[in-house]
Amino acid sequence: MSVETSVGIVYTKYFTFAEPPNEMVLEGGQKLGPITLAYETYGELNEDRSNAILIVHALSGDAHVAGIHHAQDAKPGWWDSMVGPGKGFDTNKYFVICSNVIGGCMGSTGPSSINPATGQPYGLSFPIITVGDMVQTQRELLRHLGIEKLLTVTGGSMGGMQALEWATRYPEMVRSAIPIATTHFSGAQQIAFDAVGRNAIMGDPRFRDGDYYDADMPSKGLAIARMLAHITYLSDMSMRNKFGRRLRHRDRLSYDFQSEFSVETYLDYQGEQFVNRFDPNTYLYITKAMDYFDVSARYGSLDEAMKRVQGRMLVISFTSDWLYPPYQSEEIVYALARQEKDVSYCCIQTDAGHDAFLLEFEVLAKLVAGFLENTLHPERIGAPEPLDSSETDLGPPAAASSSIYEGHRVDYEMICNLVDEGSRVLDIGCGDGALLCDLIRKRSVKGVGIELAQGNVISCVRRGVSVIQANADKGLGALPDQSFDWVILSMTLQVIENPDLVLREMLRVGRKCIISFPNFSYWKVRAKMLINGRAPVTRSLPYSWYDSPNRHVLSIRDFRAFCRERNIRVEQEIALSNRGVWRIWPNLLADEALYVISAT
Amino acid sequence: MSVETSVGIVYTKYFTFAEPPNEMVLEGGQKLGPITLAYETYGELNEDRSNAILIVHALSGDAHVAGIHHAQDAKPGWWDSMVGPGKGFDTNKYFVICSNVIGGCMGSTGPSSINPATGQPYGLSFPIITVGDMVQTQRELLRHLGIEKLLTVTGGSMGGMQALEWATRYPEMVRSAIPIATTHFSGAQQIAFDAVGRNAIMGDPRFRDGDYYDADMPSKGLAIARMLAHITYLSDMSMRNKFGRRLRHRDRLSYDFQSEFSVETYLDYQGEQFVNRFDPNTYLYITKAMDYFDVSARYGSLDEAMKRVQGRMLVISFTSDWLYPPYQSEEIVYALARQEKDVSYCCIQTDAGHDAFLLEFEVLAKLVAGFLENTLHPERIGAPEPLDSSETDLGPPAAASSSIYEGHRVDYEMICNLVDEGSRVLDIGCGDGALLCDLIRKRSVKGVGIELAQGNVISCVRRGVSVIQANADKGLGALPDQSFDWVILSMTLQVIENPDLVLREMLRVGRKCIISFPNFSYWKVRAKMLINGRAPVTRSLPYSWYDSPNRHVLSIRDFRAFCRERNIRVEQEIALSNRGVWRIWPNLLADEALYVISAT
Repeated sequence: MSVETSVGIVYTKYFTFAEPPNEMVLEGGQKLGPITLAYETYGELNEDRSNAILIVHALSGDAHVAGIHHAQDAKPGWWDSMVGPGKGFDTNKYFVICSNVIGGCMGSTGPSSINPATGQPYGLSFPIITVGDMVQTQRELLRHLGIEKLLTVTGGSMGGMQALEWATRYPEMVRSAIPIATTHFSGAQQIAFDAVGRNAIMGDPRFRDGDYYDADMPSKGLAIARMLAHITYLSDMSMRNKFGRRLRHRDRLSYDFQSEFSVETYLDYQGEQFVNRFDPNTYLYITKAMDYFDVSARYGSLDEAMKRVQGRMLVISFTSDWLYPPYQSEEIVYALARQEKDVSYCCIQTDAGHDAFLLEFEVLAKLVAGFLENTLHPERIGAPEPLDSSETDLGPPAAASSSIYEGHRVDYEMICNLVDEGSRVLDIGCGDGALLCDLIRKRSVKGVGIELAQGNVISCVRRGVSVIQANADKGLGALPDQSFDWVILSMTLQVIENPDLVLREMLRVGRKCIISFPNFSYWKVRAKMLINGRAPVTRSLPYSWYDSPNRHVLSIRDFRAFCRERNIRVEQEIALSNRGVWRIWPNLLADEALYVISAT
Repeated sequence: MSVETSVGIVYTKYFTFAEPPNEMVLEGGQKLGPITLAYETYGELNEDRSNAILIVHALSGDAHVAGIHHAQDAKPGWWDSMVGPGKGFDTNKYFVICSNVIGGCMGSTGPSSINPATGQPYGLSFPIITVGDMVQTQRELLRHLGIEKLLTVTGGSMGGMQALEWATRYPEMVRSAIPIATTHFSGAQQIAFDAVGRNAIMGDPRFRDGDYYDADMPSKGLAIARMLAHITYLSDMSMRNKFGRRLRHRDRLSYDFQSEFSVETYLDYQGEQFVNRFDPNTYLYITKAMDYFDVSARYGSLDEAMKRVQGRMLVISFTSDWLYPPYQSEEIVYALARQEKDVSYCCIQTDAGHDAFLLEFEVLAKLVAGFLENTLHPERIGAPEPLDSSETDLGPPAAASSSIYEGHRVDYEMICNLVDEGSRVLDIGCGDGALLCDLIRKRSVKGVGIELAQGNVISCVRRGVSVIQANADKGLGALPDQSFDWVILSMTLQVIENPDLVLREMLRVGRKCIISFPNFSYWKVRAKMLINGRAPVTRSLPYSWYDSPNRHVLSIRDFRAFCRERNIRVEQEIALSNRGVWRIWPNLLADEALYVISAT
């Protein structure tokens, strides 16, 4: 661990509250107190207390996020890759707090704690806790620390659930939230895996109704629960690459029931390690809290829950996470978008499965650092300065980027002139967010982009431009009617798979739509066709037939006819060339066309 | 159960062999005997013994495939939907056999059987068995039944492993095999799930080293293994649709650790049912056999294993099967294709997960019935008769079919004249197999198609045309250099995403390639462009710009230039219109072009 990027030696602190008779009332109705939370902090709270970040942990995590506990400590905190000087959560800039959840076994009050009323460990007499209860206790800790507003609250997996709960339960305290690899509720498959783990623990004869603290603990059951859970944290592909069919200790099959494949001995090891550090009862309580999690339960619907959000939201998922699949994050994202909240979404390309939230720290750091910067300094959003050079390596390009037009964007200035001051704008195929930056700066719009390429999405987030990673051909269905003043499709129509559908969706979602595209009947195109008899290559159609991402070619006359057939109102038709607007013979003399259309 | 489609009341039979001192030598080196197999048969063996089908079961299956055991029996056999008069495996035509595997607990010799040497159940003294051992015992059963050649051997999951083992171990006995929802080896994730299940059983204190037959059995451990396995048989989406977050018995959360979500009580029920019918030791032995399965282990590589296959192969996978994902089937398919075996592949679109092999019987029956018919009557392959009307509902169309050209195929006759008698042909974007049928009938070629749309793939299989369901943009990489005499891309170039790559791959894979495409510089196209200034719609380009599946437009001159730049030898250039071949001004007067090209 390099000294410069580590927070160094840190100490766990403890905060106790809810002393009787002022016990905390839990979501299930029971009272609990006193309650102790173990917590750590990193960095310094600034003078106006505006730089506080709350990190919330997953099932098996604890308060020890970063740094080491003593000079010989070989094992840094669980998110040390993300928290430290110059890291994603930069402790030179921000004050970072993390506490072990209530119900936990790493210093916070949980089933293994002594019940002061009996002098014995709570065991199963500990009340059932919920993600809401976790957040309620964290709110007490923040009050204790004198923090009334969080710059962000973030975590992966169950941490993401807590981040969502924070953003909806105490919206006025949350300037932003970053839920990672999570869901708005536990679904049937997630509950099923948890239930099998709990069955393994409770079926262990040593479990004795949770009253095992003075004897051997149900370690076999806990190990099985952990082994199973561990499979769900990886992906088929990461396991194939990491273990394959390798044998651990032998060079041939043993023809007995000993663990012999590497993956078996690895899982054995994971199980053994876990029983040395974790309390089986805590495993029951925390998985139950996850199963109960449904952020919408208190508010009637996901949309009603997301309506409460006041801060900026950055939702992150991972392509190979099958435990909390990306579609579950997307449901959160579109509910926020429907409620006109400031939401960005990135689905990071990785083989690492659910564990990616601990492993993909380079891409995460790029997203998070830019997002925090822009949350702390909203005046910098839309700034035209070039992105730093590290931007060139922002992950794999999308299979088919929706923003591929490489020419000089003569249409940008025109679009800026058309869009009303302060309006709500959706830019489909927004690329690196350049047009939206222009619109934010010059027209103070509230803008959202839709973009497929990961590198572009990260660029948008770093510029402070809200962006949803999605395929335009599929991405509008979840947005409500007439929810944008302007929907823009700039030089993207020709690469869309189903332009008929996308145009219909644009007209449904937006009051007015701006479409620009290369004019296929531009005279140079026609001349090349006529004289050469070849598919044309021009400034605005710069590709050869065999490497073109363009799926559709159309002319101004084609688009006019299309609007006529579909009963679409053409409000403006602007013909463009690199010299500017063309007023005569546009179908012949313009190499680009720009339309303002609306539904009739 | 309808009387007309059920095999009715059936009886389980028993066959015992390997009586000492003639014990069977198992793959692990140990000897075992006597061995009893429980089996059932349905239908009648025909006179020349050519209609025998062996069905092999999965982990928890048994010999009872179809029908009922007595008049009041409410539960038919495990694949009753597929086996019976007029069903996929039509017992009016075929003689169907199924036996419980060795190591099983449903009548065949396994760990719960009495060891004649001790008079006690074998328990863990039963030798470790392999999928190869299962197949070796089935071969003895067939010998007993007087069957020397199987029309087909088929099964899902572990049944698919046995089918693959049959096709490679006894290739001369296997006229065809249909491995379904399976893999050529157990991968790390599959082994991991099995290992957790075995740990649950062996960790149950009632397990007592497998010696529990005179006491309570380790039912808690077995139930946990089954609950876990059951999750892997479903899909996230099917569980979401079936259970969601519904509560079973209450209308509110109970705030305790009782099973309360529907999915929990469902898994409890699955666990309970299973322990009533299954032996925990058998669970250990059979999962171990699956973990050991690697069809290539005896032969050095998957390709060497597949090289041994003599019969026709139909490999089937399911889109939502994450336990045995489609890519594992595809590895089998391409290994067979590389060895120039007769292989077809269909990946059925479904939400049902791994269990789809038991549930998607309608599509399966269509595939299987046609495949069996053509295997029994190879002379009917390529017959030009129209497919029956039920073909119109063959499953969802592909998102982007690779065979979309709807016009009259003036190029077919030309292609038939070009292709050599008896040559090996690959048809990319083969549609419903019409061209391959022509080529088989007229030129006796050995043909394979590549096709994306499920309905077309099923049509091909039913016609007896070998077809691999794949996206042409990705599908050729696994095929070896110069492995086909002819590679055909008929009216498909324009819809391919990356024609440059596909053409390069075609030239690598085939000695000669035939390409036909609509000529974009056909005079009518040019005239419409020039006069109307609109993207043209003609006989061979029948789409509007907004609904065209065509991603690329090119002309004869474009293709000539492309070949020149890429150093591709143009062996023939044939310009076509609906009146036939055009010899003058082809770039202007032909609406279609056909090329024979080869690598230089």
